[in-house]
Amino acid sequence: MKVALLGFGTVGSSVARIVCDLKPEGLELSHIFNRSVARKKADWVPKSVIWTEDFEEVLRSDVDVIVELVGGLEPPGTWVRRALEAGKSAVTGNKKLIAKHGIELDRLARSNGAHLLYGAAVAGGIPVIPGLQQGLAGDRITRIEAILNGTCNYILSRMEAGDAFADVLKDAQRLGYAEADPSEDVDGYDARAKLVILSRIALRAAVEVESVACRSITEVDAVDLVYARDLNCTIRQISKAELRGDGISATVGPMLVPLRSPFAWSRRTENMVLVCGQYGGDVVFSGHGAGGNPTAVAVVSDLISLAHGSKVADLPSRATHVSGEFELRHYIRFVVRDQPGIVAEIAGALASEKINIDALFQRTGYEKGSLPFVVTVEPCAASALRRALDRIRHAGWLSETPLDMPILGE
Amino acid sequence: MKVALLGFGTVGSSVARIVCDLKPEGLELSHIFNRSVARKKADWVPKSVIWTEDFEEVLRSDVDVIVELVGGLEPPGTWVRRALEAGKSAVTGNKKLIAKHGIELDRLARSNGAHLLYGAAVAGGIPVIPGLQQGLAGDRITRIEAILNGTCNYILSRMEAGDAFADVLKDAQRLGYAEADPSEDVDGYDARAKLVILSRIALRAAVEVESVACRSITEVDAVDLVYARDLNCTIRQISKAELRGDGISATVGPMLVPLRSPFAWSRRTENMVLVCGQYGGDVVFSGHGAGGNPTAVAVVSDLISLAHGSKVADLPSRATHVSGEFELRHYIRFVVRDQPGIVAEIAGALASEKINIDALFQRTGYEKGSLPFVVTVEPCAASALRRALDRIRHAGWLSETPLDMPILGE
Repeated sequence: MKVALLGFGTVGSSVARIVCDLKPEGLELSHIFNRSVARKKADWVPKSVIWTEDFEEVLRSDVDVIVELVGGLEPPGTWVRRALEAGKSAVTGNKKLIAKHGIELDRLARSNGAHLLYGAAVAGGIPVIPGLQQGLAGDRITRIEAILNGTCNYILSRMEAGDAFADVLKDAQRLGYAEADPSEDVDGYDARAKLVILSRIALRAAVEVESVACRSITEVDAVDLVYARDLNCTIRQISKAELRGDGISATVGPMLVPLRSPFAWSRRTENMVLVCGQYGGDVVFSGHGAGGNPTAVAVVSDLISLAHGSKVADLPSRATHVSGEFELRHYIRFVVRDQPGIVAEIAGALASEKINIDALFQRTGYEKGSLPFVVTVEPCAASALRRALDRIRHAGWLSETPLDMPILGE
Repeated sequence: MKVALLGFGTVGSSVARIVCDLKPEGLELSHIFNRSVARKKADWVPKSVIWTEDFEEVLRSDVDVIVELVGGLEPPGTWVRRALEAGKSAVTGNKKLIAKHGIELDRLARSNGAHLLYGAAVAGGIPVIPGLQQGLAGDRITRIEAILNGTCNYILSRMEAGDAFADVLKDAQRLGYAEADPSEDVDGYDARAKLVILSRIALRAAVEVESVACRSITEVDAVDLVYARDLNCTIRQISKAELRGDGISATVGPMLVPLRSPFAWSRRTENMVLVCGQYGGDVVFSGHGAGGNPTAVAVVSDLISLAHGSKVADLPSRATHVSGEFELRHYIRFVVRDQPGIVAEIAGALASEKINIDALFQRTGYEKGSLPFVVTVEPCAASALRRALDRIRHAGWLSETPLDMPILGE
């Protein structure tokens, strides 16, 4: 099976390296395509490999599979489409492309007798996609909760240890975990694309990427990690989706997770995926979700599957309505200019939406003009809480917009 | 695809139930085979299903796949062989059969154009086997560490909380977690069969089941869990295998695991598998390793794979030498009649094998005639430690044979 690599960056060169090291039976690297390919040439790559910056040359050749590792919707979308139309299979780690066009591309592959595999698109080196497609196809998955963005996990687990967001972000950028523009990661868009793919495979729900609401972890302050600890919790960026009536609920954002839950154990850039099945109960996968080598393992595994003629069960998904509603406990952090009557106003706003207060926490040692305190509430719909908080949004005693986060169960 | 169930016990009836509930496309339950089948008949099973106690009737029929859920080497071995020879595929959760005869049966399947799947044989509802075969085929796995026996995990995690072995075992038997004869579980034979299967798939090492040494968890005393805690550890039955030179090292038995390691987080009957890849690093899978429904999920997933024409990559294994050698820190618990010179004798025995003492622990509150104390030693080969302990085996001050357990790293 002749393989063309499109993109020879971190992941692409790791793929080439693993193929050269392990020499998987039946795999032959035949082309490497990259812009300005001359400066990419590496002497450890077999002499037989053709280096090119011309995609048409790849398409005209006898390669059986293209491996797309450039990322972004275009031009990779066009490359994958044209390869599939030419009857060549495609392997990609492009979560954006698969989240947005995966169903169409799957169909295109099948109608051309080709295959489309994208094990590297979600949680890199952790075999979540094959695990779901092969090993859990016999269950009815009702819920997914996951840490799908290593950058956010790195930032929040360092903040948990007392470091400030800005410092940690700088370190993450220096270490190559975060982009110069960290918005894709911290604002949740990267995790959202992965959640959409997982929802399709696990919940069989086809949803539009943009219909899933994201909250940014930049809203999380150091004080929230302190209060979270008082609640025997920590904070993680969680991607959550579950079956709800005919549709699904899905959201991405910072949430409180109990210290006894597996999510609290995730360290640094680790990814973790929990799926709950009606019959099999909870299954957790964890490991390195990103980085050149772990992601390359997923790509090479897909190539080996293709070389051995493995086929993936075609588990149909259906277009599904998505809401952001979850019945969960919530943490609400207020920062106020202290004065009498604040708690009464908050309690009134919550009561008007029939939301029960669970507990009130107020740590000492903050100044009266900018005093953080926390209210936890019993399980309620996210929309009801939003309405309750809207009622006090313009209160004169608020120094900041309140931050609310769901509290996950154990 | 017509499916015959062989065995209608806990797992078999769960398989039938899930197939009836989820109605996976292309699957039809056609036969149920069981001894004394009349008392097994269930009214929720479709009328079209043929109940039989005659295996020949199944074999003569047009079923495409047999699902063997009876367990044990014979007669299931003969049934699976005869089905494969007749060109029928087989799905089984029979770890004993696959550990001992899996390679031969795989070959038999292929030579008859049939398939043999056994996702349920290891860690029930956790998709470890598909994860390894599909998702991690592109890595070189160098090490497996796993909790593969739910009964032992239940017993040790309850002992960790202060309960006595005998009481917990009784509870486990009452709850159906442990057999009347618990030897298969507590002595490690059940976990060993699973470790042999995982070693074949992950390390590509074909080893004889009997060549892997087991230690029983019955040697673990309440005091060991107390001392383990002092070392920031707890105790679990761990199955461990790793590449070592041309061969592998493999063993099953009680080990100390750091409280910060995922193994310490495993609760009750949970299973957990950690594989370490040269490129992808550590990946952890956890969930319900046993029970009717989780195991049935693995069986139904295998059936769905077959119905969709999925094929498993044929990853060759090779006959491999197995030793029990690991270079690990060790915990050694002595119970002695206190007298001067004991520590000097122990230190001398260890020094004669060039084993360095790491620390000595002695809790107060035990009587002088039966005093437990603990020595931890720096990483050393298991065989060297065995020789050192042999030197003092007959010492007059020993009230019990010393118990040594490896201490896993984080």
